[in-house]
Amino acid sequence: MKIDGTPYRTIWQDADGTVNIIDQRWLPHELRIVPLRDRAEFATAIRDMWVRGAPLIGATAAWGMAVQMADDPSDAALDETWAVLHETRPTAINLRWALDEMRRLLAPLPPAERARAAAHRAAQICDEDVEINRRIGLHGLQIIREIAARKGGGPVNILTHCNAGWLATVDWGTATSPIYHADAEGIPVHVFVDETRPRNQGAQLTAWELNSHGISHDLIVDNAGGHLMQHGEVDMVIVGTDRTTARGDVCNKIGTYLKALAARANGVPFYVALPSPTIDWRVRDGVREIPIEERGAGEVTMVQGRGPDGRIVHVRISPDGTGARNPAFDVTPAELVTGLLTERGLCPATEAGLAAMFGDLKAAAT
Amino acid sequence: MKIDGTPYRTIWQDADGTVNIIDQRWLPHELRIVPLRDRAEFATAIRDMWVRGAPLIGATAAWGMAVQMADDPSDAALDETWAVLHETRPTAINLRWALDEMRRLLAPLPPAERARAAAHRAAQICDEDVEINRRIGLHGLQIIREIAARKGGGPVNILTHCNAGWLATVDWGTATSPIYHADAEGIPVHVFVDETRPRNQGAQLTAWELNSHGISHDLIVDNAGGHLMQHGEVDMVIVGTDRTTARGDVCNKIGTYLKALAARANGVPFYVALPSPTIDWRVRDGVREIPIEERGAGEVTMVQGRGPDGRIVHVRISPDGTGARNPAFDVTPAELVTGLLTERGLCPATEAGLAAMFGDLKAAAT
Repeated sequence: MKIDGTPYRTIWQDADGTVNIIDQRWLPHELRIVPLRDRAEFATAIRDMWVRGAPLIGATAAWGMAVQMADDPSDAALDETWAVLHETRPTAINLRWALDEMRRLLAPLPPAERARAAAHRAAQICDEDVEINRRIGLHGLQIIREIAARKGGGPVNILTHCNAGWLATVDWGTATSPIYHADAEGIPVHVFVDETRPRNQGAQLTAWELNSHGISHDLIVDNAGGHLMQHGEVDMVIVGTDRTTARGDVCNKIGTYLKALAARANGVPFYVALPSPTIDWRVRDGVREIPIEERGAGEVTMVQGRGPDGRIVHVRISPDGTGARNPAFDVTPAELVTGLLTERGLCPATEAGLAAMFGDLKAAAT
Repeated sequence: MKIDGTPYRTIWQDADGTVNIIDQRWLPHELRIVPLRDRAEFATAIRDMWVRGAPLIGATAAWGMAVQMADDPSDAALDETWAVLHETRPTAINLRWALDEMRRLLAPLPPAERARAAAHRAAQICDEDVEINRRIGLHGLQIIREIAARKGGGPVNILTHCNAGWLATVDWGTATSPIYHADAEGIPVHVFVDETRPRNQGAQLTAWELNSHGISHDLIVDNAGGHLMQHGEVDMVIVGTDRTTARGDVCNKIGTYLKALAARANGVPFYVALPSPTIDWRVRDGVREIPIEERGAGEVTMVQGRGPDGRIVHVRISPDGTGARNPAFDVTPAELVTGLLTERGLCPATEAGLAAMFGDLKAAAT
């Protein structure tokens, strides 16, 4: 999407072959674009979260493999690169998928042909991600159009949580794609951005995206959404998902569930933007079956921001001696989800709905 | 309550007549106790939030009047002190009540008798607040005892939001009073403290209180409570209230409503600690009738904490150019409230329940 009028992706290859990324650690305070020149730099960029978001991690790993093949296309390098990049973020499903995909393609080829094939496939993986998100956006756009028609010219107010934006993907984002499409079509939209404690991805990333692209928005604390919905100030909620079960339970950033409860209580439609690869067909009951990662207490007791002298610092908000619990995700039961926005269309958040729309994927996975 | 083993109140008179307060602006990072020596210092302490919380503001105003009477007990000083202290926080209902109460008592007295009468009444107002909170605690203790009996020795897990603790009152607090009583009785309790963005009163004040008194607790982000309730980790929720309507709708710090929704969805009892003076008998439908204060965007876009060099700073968490909405309170409909913990006992959050328990107050107010 655009940064001050210029279109960007989160990862791209220059005409001279250099692969560049936006180093997201400095957002929202500074836009830093850095080239990644060898396998070690790609590994660092993924491990230290210069890039984050499952689709973008996969795309970055694919490019990391391609850059390595240009340097050393041997079988040994292929296996070693798979291992080095895989261990950077062991739980990211897209990382594993992209690395397996690259190895599957490259292993049968003569080494001399690998560099070109790898770059071609890495670029293709990026384009496929863009296309999935574009389609999610078009299906979501239909819903926004209908709300806009009902509102007769007033802005469509959309609440979102965390960052399921273009910074988490190659472009468009998942939950933000319908918003960017609506804006492109001239539909007035206004976005309420949950700050999303503890890591503040809403305040740091989503607000930066919308601000840079020129979309009307307001930052709100995670506490405020219920009140806004109670007073008719939210027309729809759209969030992303890290993992969705075969019956439509949605695992997403901690706090998503509270917004789903408020949406249900106030008759606000609650949509989940869902690229089909994030469906986990082997799991049904998300609350019971999905283990939730507990992260460090420091994320809760400290907050990162730009200090009065312009430097980025961590400040402590609680007393020494106070510990913290830090579950990173929660599960929103399917019953609270109005619909799943997928690249194939809007799907009911039910076992039958998902099976009907993705029977081929379900059969392949189970 | 105790600070590292020593019992404190939030405001007290020394043997030499000096009135002291805890200057709460430095919590949780530093405990500063300061004397307030004249009317101007009392006005500053209330206006600049060295003290906060409706009951404590009232108590501080009463002591401010008493200190002024020792200096100049004239009719002119009486009226002027009323006006100077009243304008410090114009919307605080306890402030107005305490000042009216002091003037009603002092105006008919000869000036020479006013200083002694004022100090006596100020001390009494403090003791009355302590007694109300003590009683709320004893009624809440019954509930904790019952849960403890069911749990057979495991800790009773209590979630609270914002600071309805002893720092907001003269002692005990409202929502925290049952917790301190249970702890005193040897019942194991564990408190989940919502950080309570945007001003972080949970992280700054409630966590400090519990840490100082030695009560087991964990800080959590405001997003986490729903997940914890969904997984049976919360036995009860207790919150305070700024204003409760005649039918039991509860206006409290923003985000309370989301926790009430999660409590209902997961069968967790949700109690509101309610000193009867905070009942607003003229209002029935809280969502429709209570205007919600919108505060400045800076509270949302900035966070206060202790920086790496030990100094307290404000850091910016969002991009320049991003605005914010900042509703300070929300309303939890009475239907979501399991019961109101008052100084007279546990009361159903219904019009009939409140009228039955507080018929005298209702008659006097309507």
